[in-house]
Amino acid sequence: MTQTDTPFISTLLKLRQSRRFLDQPIPAEIVDLLLDVARWTGSAKNTQPWEFIVVDDRDTNIALSKAGQFTGFLDNVALSIVIVLPESPSRSVAYDEGRVSERLMLAADHLGLGSGTAWFSTPDAQETVRGLLGIPADREVWSAVGFGYIDRSQPQRASTLGGGRKSLDEIISYGRYGQKA
Amino acid sequence: MTQTDTPFISTLLKLRQSRRFLDQPIPAEIVDLLLDVARWTGSAKNTQPWEFIVVDDRDTNIALSKAGQFTGFLDNVALSIVIVLPESPSRSVAYDEGRVSERLMLAADHLGLGSGTAWFSTPDAQETVRGLLGIPADREVWSAVGFGYIDRSQPQRASTLGGGRKSLDEIISYGRYGQKA
Repeated sequence: MTQTDTPFISTLLKLRQSRRFLDQPIPAEIVDLLLDVARWTGSAKNTQPWEFIVVDDRDTNIALSKAGQFTGFLDNVALSIVIVLPESPSRSVAYDEGRVSERLMLAADHLGLGSGTAWFSTPDAQETVRGLLGIPADREVWSAVGFGYIDRSQPQRASTLGGGRKSLDEIISYGRYGQKA
Repeated sequence: MTQTDTPFISTLLKLRQSRRFLDQPIPAEIVDLLLDVARWTGSAKNTQPWEFIVVDDRDTNIALSKAGQFTGFLDNVALSIVIVLPESPSRSVAYDEGRVSERLMLAADHLGLGSGTAWFSTPDAQETVRGLLGIPADREVWSAVGFGYIDRSQPQRASTLGGGRKSLDEIISYGRYGQKA
């Protein structure tokens, strides 16, 4: 019989972004494991359309935190993994970028870390990151995932965003669009 | 001390797409759990830019399998969850679509199911799906995830694709692009 009430399912239902972290480094073996999780993530036609830059330097992460509009929390991460993509990435590359980011965040949670996504959504932000990390002209950079041990004495949520979800009835149809169970 | 060698990490390193399934339905409680996992997935600014159509009718799944170029395996899934997006979805919506698909596939594995992504990558394919499922003109559809109990007597991989991954050295830099550890 399949167990439906397990710690893993509970994680999937409860995992939220973290944004405030302790000043505590992440052990190398944990970093290596995160990178291996990234490496083994599935992608469209197994193209693996990614490279990753591991940033553990505080000053660099602070500079990255100032690049985008919703990247401020990078100023206090222990580590960020910046995702480098091919030039003019297709829609399926963005989808694959989401897949690898999600997998990294779930692995981080399992390893006792908090994490959050940072999105460099404007050309200016992307140029800043390109300059900071020496990313060549034939590559693009759109996002990073930041990691650290969660500082539970501080709120984790961006204050402007609600944390709930739409109801199942609002988002699910059966058989055909708009058909309810 | 953090455990790095756990069943969950092992899943993250080993999970692959499944494409051949047994003729065995998925219990309703498992389907409900998958939908709740989808519902609670994180998204950019908590926009939750998705709706889902649950398709368990074999004929409809066979019709969906014929819509796209890499969607053939839908002909034998027990269930597909088709992801409906807003009109002209932005790049971050594609990223969020990847996040929810990845989470669904990991949950499926945990619940004893195999799964695979199906991509409706051409306007023709998308129009076919729109027609089959009654998706309105102000919504778009790009992908689905198919689920079922794996038929382990059959190969699961699309024969034209390798299953390995690039080495860490090929994809990882430290501190700056191209800088190796």
